[in-house]
Amino acid sequence: MFIQQLIKLLGSDKVSQSETELFRHSHDESFHKAVEPDVVCFPESRKDVEMIMDVAREYKVPVTPFGAGSGLEGQAIPVKKGISINFEKMNNVVNFSPEDLMITVQPGMTRLQLNKLVNRHGLMFPIDPGADATIGGMVATNASGTTAVRYGSTRDQLLDLEVVLANGTVIHSGSYAKKSSSGYHLTGLFAGSEGTLGIITEITLRLHGIPEHTVAARCTFDTPEACAEAAKTVLLSGIPVMRMELVDAESISQVNAYGGYHFPIRHSLFFEFAGTRTAALEEVKIAEQLMRELGCGNWEVAGGSKERMELWKARHEMAYAYRHIKGMANTGADVCVPISRLPELVVYARKLIDESGLTGGVLGHVGDGNFHTIVLYDPSVAGEKEKAEYTNEALALRAIEVGGTCTGEHGVGLGKMKFQEIEHGEATIIMKQLKKMFDPEGLLNPGKIFNLD
Amino acid sequence: MFIQQLIKLLGSDKVSQSETELFRHSHDESFHKAVEPDVVCFPESRKDVEMIMDVAREYKVPVTPFGAGSGLEGQAIPVKKGISINFEKMNNVVNFSPEDLMITVQPGMTRLQLNKLVNRHGLMFPIDPGADATIGGMVATNASGTTAVRYGSTRDQLLDLEVVLANGTVIHSGSYAKKSSSGYHLTGLFAGSEGTLGIITEITLRLHGIPEHTVAARCTFDTPEACAEAAKTVLLSGIPVMRMELVDAESISQVNAYGGYHFPIRHSLFFEFAGTRTAALEEVKIAEQLMRELGCGNWEVAGGSKERMELWKARHEMAYAYRHIKGMANTGADVCVPISRLPELVVYARKLIDESGLTGGVLGHVGDGNFHTIVLYDPSVAGEKEKAEYTNEALALRAIEVGGTCTGEHGVGLGKMKFQEIEHGEATIIMKQLKKMFDPEGLLNPGKIFNLD
Ligand SMILES: Cc1cc2nc3c(=O)[nH]c(=O)nc-3n(C[C@H](O)[C@H](O)[C@H](O)COP(=O)(O)OP(=O)(O)OC[C@H]3O[C@@H](n4cnc5c(N)ncnc54)[C@H](O)[C@@H]3O)c2cc1C
Ligand SMILES: Cc1cc2nc3c(=O)[nH]c(=O)nc-3n(C[C@H](O)[C@H](O)[C@H](O)COP(=O)(O)OP(=O)(O)OC[C@H]3O[C@@H](n4cnc5c(N)ncnc54)[C@H](O)[C@@H]3O)c2cc1C
Repeated sequence: MFIQQLIKLLGSDKVSQSETELFRHSHDESFHKAVEPDVVCFPESRKDVEMIMDVAREYKVPVTPFGAGSGLEGQAIPVKKGISINFEKMNNVVNFSPEDLMITVQPGMTRLQLNKLVNRHGLMFPIDPGADATIGGMVATNASGTTAVRYGSTRDQLLDLEVVLANGTVIHSGSYAKKSSSGYHLTGLFAGSEGTLGIITEITLRLHGIPEHTVAARCTFDTPEACAEAAKTVLLSGIPVMRMELVDAESISQVNAYGGYHFPIRHSLFFEFAGTRTAALEEVKIAEQLMRELGCGNWEVAGGSKERMELWKARHEMAYAYRHIKGMANTGADVCVPISRLPELVVYARKLIDESGLTGGVLGHVGDGNFHTIVLYDPSVAGEKEKAEYTNEALALRAIEVGGTCTGEHGVGLGKMKFQEIEHGEATIIMKQLKKMFDPEGLLNPGKIFNLD
Repeated sequence: MFIQQLIKLLGSDKVSQSETELFRHSHDESFHKAVEPDVVCFPESRKDVEMIMDVAREYKVPVTPFGAGSGLEGQAIPVKKGISINFEKMNNVVNFSPEDLMITVQPGMTRLQLNKLVNRHGLMFPIDPGADATIGGMVATNASGTTAVRYGSTRDQLLDLEVVLANGTVIHSGSYAKKSSSGYHLTGLFAGSEGTLGIITEITLRLHGIPEHTVAARCTFDTPEACAEAAKTVLLSGIPVMRMELVDAESISQVNAYGGYHFPIRHSLFFEFAGTRTAALEEVKIAEQLMRELGCGNWEVAGGSKERMELWKARHEMAYAYRHIKGMANTGADVCVPISRLPELVVYARKLIDESGLTGGVLGHVGDGNFHTIVLYDPSVAGEKEKAEYTNEALALRAIEVGGTCTGEHGVGLGKMKFQEIEHGEATIIMKQLKKMFDPEGLLNPGKIFNLD
């Protein structure tokens, strides 16, 4: 049987059927239904991954890659069971070239591990989803976070991927060149493909210099809409903000309670400015002036690195803050819209949550036009889940209607499958053909992104 | 016959078989062998393009899109004859949203037309190949130019493409959202596909704010290698240069002669710095200090906008400068390598040209690790063409060897086909499968990028 074969090829220490491991690989950080794999493999090299794919092909068993399991749409849940591949033993540096602002790593390295390594060379990998995700998972979901407003998403950081395809071929999608017009651009295609087109075994990333000086600031407005309008103004002023986050009053109140902070419980914008000292200080001054003209309250600059860290620690704890409430589950939207439509969408989101009667907040990376809702529901109360999901759905549909997307950064997984045809129209046919071309037997993370049955 | 059918469907004013038009569409700016199409169509709308594709399918006739014909690798040459589609009547704005830093245009609009339109809103489309290329052509070749060091290539500017596929389906590859993790990323795939996967009929682009202040500067070094080393130093300093160009002494001498300039005939770096006034001035000061430490000569700042324009006019005339020499043809490399390998590659390029005994220069966008050679040959002298091509080939192979690419921005077309398997290895198989999936009958710009016969 295929598990015997895996043990034979990989060795028993790289193959686990323990209850703990099966449970750990049955879910991610979403509230999608857990499904346990039949077995979990812990490859240590690309060769191991190739052998796993050989077995998968031979026995027609599904394979689902697993990063840190921090996904929010159920991407890593092995809904058709089979083999879960955990990359925690593939977390090494393959090649680091500080001079080229470039590093090649294995997919199991996490973003914090990576930054620890490169920070001492004055370099950073800026993409920062709230969780300590793996680089493989971040590529596979095209993750972003608070710094995307300046640096783009994970896809924009990629120079090359090594990928094991379903048929066993190993390819490189790019090169070490910063730009290229050679061949077809496969790198962008694998980014965001959630393990459905191939298994990524090496990732070559751009790195960025750590700016000389960084300043954070925050201010408040009377409505989330006013925050969104203010964010728009900052963008149009041309200030290259490093971060610009909307946190509504409900979310502030949750995180104050969770983390013992004392932020004013008002709708807030959190900022970060970075560059040379002169540039950063000039930008914070311009931003303050703009915000005051728009009537902000509580303008506060966090100049010291301790206060600054606290601000972003709080921002990154928002999601956990909502989650700490015992017995409650949550769902959340991840829409991204053109910035001109942001204020109206934020108003709509707040209205949806209020009308649902549930507790929830609006927060997100408004510099990109990307924001989330987090809506709490009690799974034991009939109808609450449906109400929470309705807010999600209505917001995603409205975002698509105004030219935006149902997911700005979390990905499709299970949760956003139902919006694919609505958002992509006829292009969905092409996407499904691509899936069939890369994975004719449906071995790679089946049941995700598109319904192929 | 298919031409009758085209006339019937489109009207005779959109279909030409005039000698002038057939000749105009038989070549681009490269020295690849000209081939005339059977007929040239001038669609005015997507519907027209769809009808052209209907005819192409019905009569199994190849279709080759044609932008401004400024390509340097023969991409627009209809090597298998058939229909050439010229987009000059599809050059309108579809939707312009300055607030969203976003514009949707038809593919026939040129980059200068586009900038004329958006500049008065304080916005710009920064990508600037030396020629006044069409946006469609730039997307199709993933063009870049002097500003890619700051803004990336054309691919990085794309939010959405409307594409007519070979089978007649019309798709949108993206949305108006600044970032998305929904579906597979088709936008990146069409960018750089040179009309071989679909016909682009609408393009939604990011725009950028025009920086408040811009300063240009130049300096000289004793060797091209020293220029490359200096460029590397500037990059590592973290200065976000707007432009950083290497122009070797031979190229300076050519452009002085062509344009009546008086630049010192030395190996040179041309710079541009842009941002707020404070930032730009700070950057030029730091750069000057770095360059002087490295022993540069002739440091000169072009503060006024007239001098600045002249510097970049000269830079953009380089290629034409070489071309103005009567009776001579030329060929050129377009390699892109990791910046750490740039100095050695530049030395190698210069050596290849010297050894060939031909006249030629080394110049390019060294901030990206991307540079060109231009090598002149007399087509009437036996062996010269082969010698020129040898320099090209040897340089491309060396670039690939050090982890770079055979084409940083010009694209594959006819000229770089022979390097595809060497550069992409097994990935070439996937690329060919993609081509077959999108274009099973081989109607779209056949004979380019890959040899499928
Ligand atoms: C509190 C919190 C905050 C968050 N904030 C953000 C945020 O701001 N922005 C954001 O974008 N996301 C955010 N996320 C979501 C999550 O962190 C990202 O989706 C992340 O990219 C998932 O990485 P992972 O390593 O946990 O992958 P997993 O969840 O384990 O897997 C995700 C997908 O990647 C695939 N995959 C993993 N490794 C490979 C591989 N080697 N080859 C092919 N496929 C692979 C899996 O099959 C799966 O489809 C947040 C999550 C939490 C819990
Ligand atoms: C003097 C000079 C300097 C140059 N400098 C640079 C430079 O710095 N950087 C750079 O990148 N390039 C440079 N180039 C090359 C050239 O300008 C670019 O390749 C440009 O992108 C070509 O655009 P075009 O409109 O002329 O396209 P064309 O040459 O007409 O066509 C190029 C390709 O695009 C395809 N195409 C055109 N329209 C469409 C469409 N609507 N749908 C699908 N496919 C389409 C064609 O089929 C063809 O394959 C230079 C050229 C010259 C002559």
